[in-house]
Amino acid sequence: MSLLLLGRWSAAERDGCLALLQAAMPDEQWLLAPPSNPAEAAEVEVAIVANPEPGSLGGLPNLRLIQSLWAGVERLMQDLTLPPDVPLARMVDPAMNEAMVHTALWAVLSLQRGFFDVLAQQARREWRQPAQPRAAEWRVLVLGAGELGGRVATGLALQGYKVSAWSRRPARLDGVQSLQGEAGLSLGLAQADVMINLLPLTEQTRSFFDAARFAAMKPGASLVNLARGAHVVEADLLAALDRGHLRRAVLDVFAQEPLPSEHPFWQHAKVTVLPHCAAQTDPRSAVAVVKRNILALRAGATLQHLVQRQQGY
Amino acid sequence: MSLLLLGRWSAAERDGCLALLQAAMPDEQWLLAPPSNPAEAAEVEVAIVANPEPGSLGGLPNLRLIQSLWAGVERLMQDLTLPPDVPLARMVDPAMNEAMVHTALWAVLSLQRGFFDVLAQQARREWRQPAQPRAAEWRVLVLGAGELGGRVATGLALQGYKVSAWSRRPARLDGVQSLQGEAGLSLGLAQADVMINLLPLTEQTRSFFDAARFAAMKPGASLVNLARGAHVVEADLLAALDRGHLRRAVLDVFAQEPLPSEHPFWQHAKVTVLPHCAAQTDPRSAVAVVKRNILALRAGATLQHLVQRQQGY
Repeated sequence: MSLLLLGRWSAAERDGCLALLQAAMPDEQWLLAPPSNPAEAAEVEVAIVANPEPGSLGGLPNLRLIQSLWAGVERLMQDLTLPPDVPLARMVDPAMNEAMVHTALWAVLSLQRGFFDVLAQQARREWRQPAQPRAAEWRVLVLGAGELGGRVATGLALQGYKVSAWSRRPARLDGVQSLQGEAGLSLGLAQADVMINLLPLTEQTRSFFDAARFAAMKPGASLVNLARGAHVVEADLLAALDRGHLRRAVLDVFAQEPLPSEHPFWQHAKVTVLPHCAAQTDPRSAVAVVKRNILALRAGATLQHLVQRQQGY
Repeated sequence: MSLLLLGRWSAAERDGCLALLQAAMPDEQWLLAPPSNPAEAAEVEVAIVANPEPGSLGGLPNLRLIQSLWAGVERLMQDLTLPPDVPLARMVDPAMNEAMVHTALWAVLSLQRGFFDVLAQQARREWRQPAQPRAAEWRVLVLGAGELGGRVATGLALQGYKVSAWSRRPARLDGVQSLQGEAGLSLGLAQADVMINLLPLTEQTRSFFDAARFAAMKPGASLVNLARGAHVVEADLLAALDRGHLRRAVLDVFAQEPLPSEHPFWQHAKVTVLPHCAAQTDPRSAVAVVKRNILALRAGATLQHLVQRQQGY
């Protein structure tokens, strides 16, 4: 049997990942391209994938597990040739969790303490102390309370912020107000100083942040998008910033990535552009997660971080 | 008896503070300028001060406590007319502690995760993911392990960083390596990716960060100065940045404040200028601290946060 490693990445990225995988699992056979014949296809037991080309996981009769190296699997889910009954696991990497919590904390600190404004002042040689509300006076709304959203919410609560989390199911998180449904969302949007988007991307959450949702936010609120570009209607966001209703957007993800050089976000005084670096997979810790799931598969033990295919995440 | 409130501040700042003090201690008599006659001077029981003019605390025969509204008291200590035997308390304000921990955390996150570089890239419309070591691979050295330094060190350790603290006396802080003396300093400077200065300003620590200390730092290390401008020899810092030995300086304090508009720090690509906003006194919580000490004085109880006059902090 063999392990198939597929992604849309550079040869250097692939080789770096492969070297770590081979070091962790030295006795495996590795296949680095879609099988070229039925015999090769029949050998594939596990597919380890990083945003693979659509169609590349069909025609593998003995495939038992698809293990994503990415946390978000919405592109995989759109692949209609994806075998429907093969377990699909997404990446939940402790290093990625830590990175996401830290990016959210950095964004919230930068907003609450006025550091984005201070950095802009420096370019103008301007010495002016920003208004600095206390953390306990500042309300953060985290949208999505899964693996990442839950950790971000509790991490911010530990730093003294008032935190709400909006999610499909009630979240039981220490020190965090749990909100559900449209009523919970309205309350959350109306009271928060900053929203952090960590929703999964599904048909229900595509274009979630539109003109109506921006209008429902408190004047002066800020948006931090750490999930997917398709959650946000970019033209509506620009309009909300330009009419002064929103204070700032901190965006790690975009409708098109890399962000095109002519895009208005780049030079917008109220937009902070991050190059999709909020929480990169750390190949070293990701490899350990992959190995654990492969060992569990062969031992008949419980697989970790399986995607609920009907829910889409 | 009366309470004397003195500072170098605007009338609006003083009135804002006075209103909070009067609300907390409605039965007191307040004096808002140095006494104009001996009878008035004899009435002064407590002086509450924010960087007062030198000489303004002499000639108060019944003064029993000098309560600073500031954490740093080095300017007060330089006032040779300061009555030597009157207890001097500095401000230790929970809100200020939180603000300082958060500023240090923001600076360390910005450095470790490459966010300063990312913000500079945005101005050039450049999409490039920065190298992002994990927190556990990143060593922070906190210089000074007092009220503020100790909290900063433990706060960073809780976020997963490797943390050392260098101080005169051994510090017992959870998860923090304690360093003392010249040998400890050499080790600390050689191994840290970022140094956070929270030393008190004394004759021993003035010009602490000079060419020799910068040369002792690991190549690529960064300096975060959250204490006093006089700790740093600014010309030596510029030289260490310009020859590429240091990666970045994040400076909240300067030899001259506000930073003069012609100062090279303003436009230096490797310097982040903060307008002395790392941890402002929050008048609301500071007033509670002042009130507690005044009540303790009158009850004969222990005064909080007294300065050791011989040590200078």
